[in-house]
Amino acid sequence: MSYIAEDIVCDAPAGRIEGTSAYRAFMEPFVQNLRGAAMIAAFGDDETALVMYDTTTVPVPSAPGAECVTVKEGKIIYSRLLFDRTPFQAARQMTATHRAEETHAACQSQ
Amino acid sequence: MSYIAEDIVCDAPAGRIEGTSAYRAFMEPFVQNLRGAAMIAAFGDDETALVMYDTTTVPVPSAPGAECVTVKEGKIIYSRLLFDRTPFQAARQMTATHRAEETHAACQSQ
Repeated sequence: MSYIAEDIVCDAPAGRIEGTSAYRAFMEPFVQNLRGAAMIAAFGDDETALVMYDTTTVPVPSAPGAECVTVKEGKIIYSRLLFDRTPFQAARQMTATHRAEETHAACQSQ
Repeated sequence: MSYIAEDIVCDAPAGRIEGTSAYRAFMEPFVQNLRGAAMIAAFGDDETALVMYDTTTVPVPSAPGAECVTVKEGKIIYSRLLFDRTPFQAARQMTATHRAEETHAACQSQ
């Protein structure tokens, strides 16, 4: 978080996130589930960096992302973040279904 | 399609697409619904281009995408394509629901 400006603005697939607290709350569950990352391509100039990477997460084995960040005085002040939400939603639904089945089985065994 | 190599390989959110015919079939519905596009950032070197752009489409007003393409002899031989499928799926579901409601209304009015 040391490269993130206090007043960061991040346009993510689900909408805008503003400020470090909201950004941290948004990133934390992803980072906790992160198992690996590989850079696909990274380019930039004095104030912009554009990167594409693939990540391995607990719920989704391959979850590529792309990010276009604007840097000012050594800190990221803006991030346009792009990833496909579909596999994450599918994984969440699967977990919910699994939990419901477990609850159902537990109730039946009583 | 003149910049697309015959044996293009495109890794898209839903999986791999190989060859110009499959690539055209994949792109056609998107291009037909495309109403506008704006480049967010574009970088590259001799053989790689990394771009992020925003698009306006009929079903989804803002559908950003990112693409990392490999160029060989002036043609794109590989494309790693990234976009969020969620709003497109939501739009499709909405259309399906709307059609079902229309059918239902039409049946009731008979």
